[in-house]
Amino acid sequence: MIIGLIGLGKMGFALGEQMLEKGHTVLATDVSEASRASFEKVGGKTVRTSAELVSSLQAPRVVWLMVPQGKIVDQVLSEILPRLDAGDIVIEAGNSQYKDSMRRAKEASDRGIAYLDVGTSGGVEGARHGACYMIGGEKEAFLRVEELFSSTAVKGGYAYVGPSGSGHYAKMVHNGIEYGMMAAIGEGFEILQKSPFPYELGDVANVFTNGSVIRGWLMDLTARALEKDPNLTSIRGVMHSSGEGKWTLEEALDLQVASPVIALSLMMRYRSQETDTFTGKVVAALRNEFGGHAVEKAGE
Amino acid sequence: MIIGLIGLGKMGFALGEQMLEKGHTVLATDVSEASRASFEKVGGKTVRTSAELVSSLQAPRVVWLMVPQGKIVDQVLSEILPRLDAGDIVIEAGNSQYKDSMRRAKEASDRGIAYLDVGTSGGVEGARHGACYMIGGEKEAFLRVEELFSSTAVKGGYAYVGPSGSGHYAKMVHNGIEYGMMAAIGEGFEILQKSPFPYELGDVANVFTNGSVIRGWLMDLTARALEKDPNLTSIRGVMHSSGEGKWTLEEALDLQVASPVIALSLMMRYRSQETDTFTGKVVAALRNEFGGHAVEKAGE
Amino acid sequence: MIIGLIGLGKMGFALGEQMLEKGHTVLATDVSEASRASFEKVGGKTVRTSAELVSSLQAPRVVWLMVPQGKIVDQVLSEILPRLDAGDIVIEAGNSQYKDSMRRAKEASDRGIAYLDVGTSGGVEGARHGACYMIGGEKEAFLRVEELFSSTAVKGGYAYVGPSGSGHYAKMVHNGIEYGMMAAIGEGFEILQKSPFPYELGDVANVFTNGSVIRGWLMDLTARALEKDPNLTSIRGVMHSSGEGKWTLEEALDLQVASPVIALSLMMRYRSQETDTFTGKVVAALRNEFGGHAVEKAGE
Amino acid sequence: MIIGLIGLGKMGFALGEQMLEKGHTVLATDVSEASRASFEKVGGKTVRTSAELVSSLQAPRVVWLMVPQGKIVDQVLSEILPRLDAGDIVIEAGNSQYKDSMRRAKEASDRGIAYLDVGTSGGVEGARHGACYMIGGEKEAFLRVEELFSSTAVKGGYAYVGPSGSGHYAKMVHNGIEYGMMAAIGEGFEILQKSPFPYELGDVANVFTNGSVIRGWLMDLTARALEKDPNLTSIRGVMHSSGEGKWTLEEALDLQVASPVIALSLMMRYRSQETDTFTGKVVAALRNEFGGHAVEKAGE
Repeated sequence: MIIGLIGLGKMGFALGEQMLEKGHTVLATDVSEASRASFEKVGGKTVRTSAELVSSLQAPRVVWLMVPQGKIVDQVLSEILPRLDAGDIVIEAGNSQYKDSMRRAKEASDRGIAYLDVGTSGGVEGARHGACYMIGGEKEAFLRVEELFSSTAVKGGYAYVGPSGSGHYAKMVHNGIEYGMMAAIGEGFEILQKSPFPYELGDVANVFTNGSVIRGWLMDLTARALEKDPNLTSIRGVMHSSGEGKWTLEEALDLQVASPVIALSLMMRYRSQETDTFTGKVVAALRNEFGGHAVEKAGE
Repeated sequence: MIIGLIGLGKMGFALGEQMLEKGHTVLATDVSEASRASFEKVGGKTVRTSAELVSSLQAPRVVWLMVPQGKIVDQVLSEILPRLDAGDIVIEAGNSQYKDSMRRAKEASDRGIAYLDVGTSGGVEGARHGACYMIGGEKEAFLRVEELFSSTAVKGGYAYVGPSGSGHYAKMVHNGIEYGMMAAIGEGFEILQKSPFPYELGDVANVFTNGSVIRGWLMDLTARALEKDPNLTSIRGVMHSSGEGKWTLEEALDLQVASPVIALSLMMRYRSQETDTFTGKVVAALRNEFGGHAVEKAGE
Repeated sequence: MIIGLIGLGKMGFALGEQMLEKGHTVLATDVSEASRASFEKVGGKTVRTSAELVSSLQAPRVVWLMVPQGKIVDQVLSEILPRLDAGDIVIEAGNSQYKDSMRRAKEASDRGIAYLDVGTSGGVEGARHGACYMIGGEKEAFLRVEELFSSTAVKGGYAYVGPSGSGHYAKMVHNGIEYGMMAAIGEGFEILQKSPFPYELGDVANVFTNGSVIRGWLMDLTARALEKDPNLTSIRGVMHSSGEGKWTLEEALDLQVASPVIALSLMMRYRSQETDTFTGKVVAALRNEFGGHAVEKAGE
Repeated sequence: MIIGLIGLGKMGFALGEQMLEKGHTVLATDVSEASRASFEKVGGKTVRTSAELVSSLQAPRVVWLMVPQGKIVDQVLSEILPRLDAGDIVIEAGNSQYKDSMRRAKEASDRGIAYLDVGTSGGVEGARHGACYMIGGEKEAFLRVEELFSSTAVKGGYAYVGPSGSGHYAKMVHNGIEYGMMAAIGEGFEILQKSPFPYELGDVANVFTNGSVIRGWLMDLTARALEKDPNLTSIRGVMHSSGEGKWTLEEALDLQVASPVIALSLMMRYRSQETDTFTGKVVAALRNEFGGHAVEKAGE
């Protein structure tokens, strides 16, 4: 197929490269000249702007957005939607909030443009060698571009999951599960690391990856990380997050779903970004007030 | 090798069958006559008692215990240890508490008998077709029977992890991680199930198994369960537990490891076994006391 | 002072009665004719509608809203704001979301009307005999009606806490703390109730109310509830919630505050409203898949 | 009454002083000569050793232990039990683990000595001016020394709660509740502190102490601490713990009580004692592995 690809970041570049490899024609753009140059080197064609990208493609067009979620998606859409024709298809495959995707799909639909919201999983490796897609939007549009998904996903790694928003919603929940799984692995290895036994943590992770109940890609990656740095001494345990975990929890609250594992995996990320907490100060002060327990002085 | 296998439950039977398949000679025993008969049918030999099993084997013996953790292990050991000779090896591959294993290894060692504590993962399928072993105890003893592990584990699926107790400790932590992972998957699917979208949950699980970050055996099993019963309508959500999760949490507390995900995955299991809670009664009563909020009457 | 009071529910009625007792003149309204009649009996005057209430008072007016948060507040405001004069003061003392209060204060301010958002605590008893107020809005307006707060609060039980929204925000957090405290008490008494000792729970609650570190009104109420029903056998442990706990948690997430106690006290309320969970079904199904552990069948 | 008091730490000294004030005769001992000298200054009598204390009193003796829980209690008991006579009463009023108290009561009982396990609450102020006691052991012994409790507790602040162990068990749970309440307050004030409003936190705490639903001693102490140091800038938020919270949680696990608030209030204390976590390192490493997300390097 012929695809217009907007966004050549880590994910977009890897995916574009895979699309080329699978025989698609890819016309790409990115704000970074260096990224465009790199993409040309691997065989892609590029233009400078989204507007140029649209005008360079013939209708019916397929435009794939792989840009950071939030304002940038809206900005790109404001540039391309007025230039697209009825019958064109926009695929938005970033980590957008599903309500944004529902709103955007409506805006596109008002112009006769189909809008697929696609949750993409599998990390950079997946984008390069075989991704996993959860696809929401009009089924008819999905069917028209199914080949694009089938050719760049691993076997079985794509599914049409429902109407607009449902693709990004499924990805949001996927990431909520991911937060919980990662925290479970982290906690387990912290126990092993503090245990009375002199474990080679990499050996343990490695045996967990082969035949255990908890085997899977996250365990593979744990083994890989521990192979590089057996006690992770070079890494600080600051856990950043980029939105999906928080959205999952907010959704859980709206649905009144008790989801303590997802909640706590997110909160411990927040905690890891602090060196001290006001909660702790209050509790330490209270212990001092009623029991005369010594407090540690700030600056000590 | 020639193995004495004590215990022909779900796990022991499957493992015994695999051992036979891999060319080992297996003399087994179990309290159940039916289990012994079944094992004879698949090509094994059996005796009625553990004592008979020991006396039927020639030193240096290898005796593999696959019985429920707790008193039964001690009972079996009290029958066999006095009958074994120095130089024999006992492999205890159930889900024992690691401190029990350390005590038992000491008792065996006092008689010159080596004692390997082996955490076995992979479920019944693993026991039958390729398991995962975390092995603790004397390394020299491990090396003498390594072939037994290597022939019945999946590729890469066994490791000697340290001194007595460390095998069962690693398995304990494995199960703690498993509790957290399962809860994360459960919570995610509960959100999907209550979501505004008409998901086919089995389709979502299936796409998660192929190429996603959270792919792994537990997701495979989720897909399999949802394929059989798409909304799990036939199953009550009562989550039992058999010890390892609690031990992991108790260990975390002793080590002062903040492990909220493991803690909450266990506590929600406890909660699932209750139809009502005294905590809830107290909170409902308090809301009634201060705010006049109606309580639901028991029996309504 | 002369006050127009809109809302004669549990809280509004009790507060109106206290205002009368403290020598204020109260003209009240409520949609319920019965409530109006009851209020007349305790010495108040009433009118049928909010519009009538406004037209019956002379500027500068003080109108106190004590109605359920949400749409009803907006509806009442849409009736009274156009009828009020610049210089009038609206006091909204319900449990509104603080962002709503900021918006409403802006709308009032655009008409020259001052708007105080007041968090009211102390339950029905407090409203009747001495409440606790956290007051947000223009300080000048607060000072003009301070006597109203000082006369109906317990000693020290009112404070001007900041600009518009800050009163309801402080009340929101108050309720978040309340959720956590109530859950802590509930969990503690559940442990006592399941303990190996034959406690008279009411006796324990009673001693906790006198001189202990955890003494306070919630413990008083615990003792009172247990005195009425020593084992709370008549009450189902279903814990409802009315918004503030959820808002507190959502605010915590926006501020990236790790607040596990508030989070879990809310989630266990949600859990208490379910008889079964999909999370539980998934975990039970998984245990069955990998370990052959029996599931409980629905309907059993 | 005539009391032998062993232990003149913060709690023991304050309590001894109160006993003197209430007209009791107190013969005290402590390992610290300075403490003994101080106690003499406030009107008490002292001896150097526990043995001397026992021999200086006439049977039937009442000996009150107020020493740190654990080995020290056993050590003191090993010194005094052989020197006491049948009919004497030992009151152990520290924060002992209830199973220890049950064992010790049995040892005392074997010698005909009554042993009361007393949970003491109210902090140092309570010990000095009116404490709160939960008393376990033989009821007959309790009645013989009831005057001692009634004279040094606040009104209503003591109760006989059941057989040996039940006093310390009730205190253990009291402290579990306390952990949860303190965490709830801490979390709430952290939200206020990070909120968009310029709160004077001390003012908010102060209004919460008067008439609110969450009023109580812990809120009083919060107000007091914030009055001294309005933003707690001088205090580090490191939350230590001394056992009871952990015991409460372990007990909850044994009873299968879902107690997430108590669990998390404890775990956040553990977390506050760490500057970095292995859990965090694992999660950060995993995010880097699958998504190329940058990790923060240790030492940065």
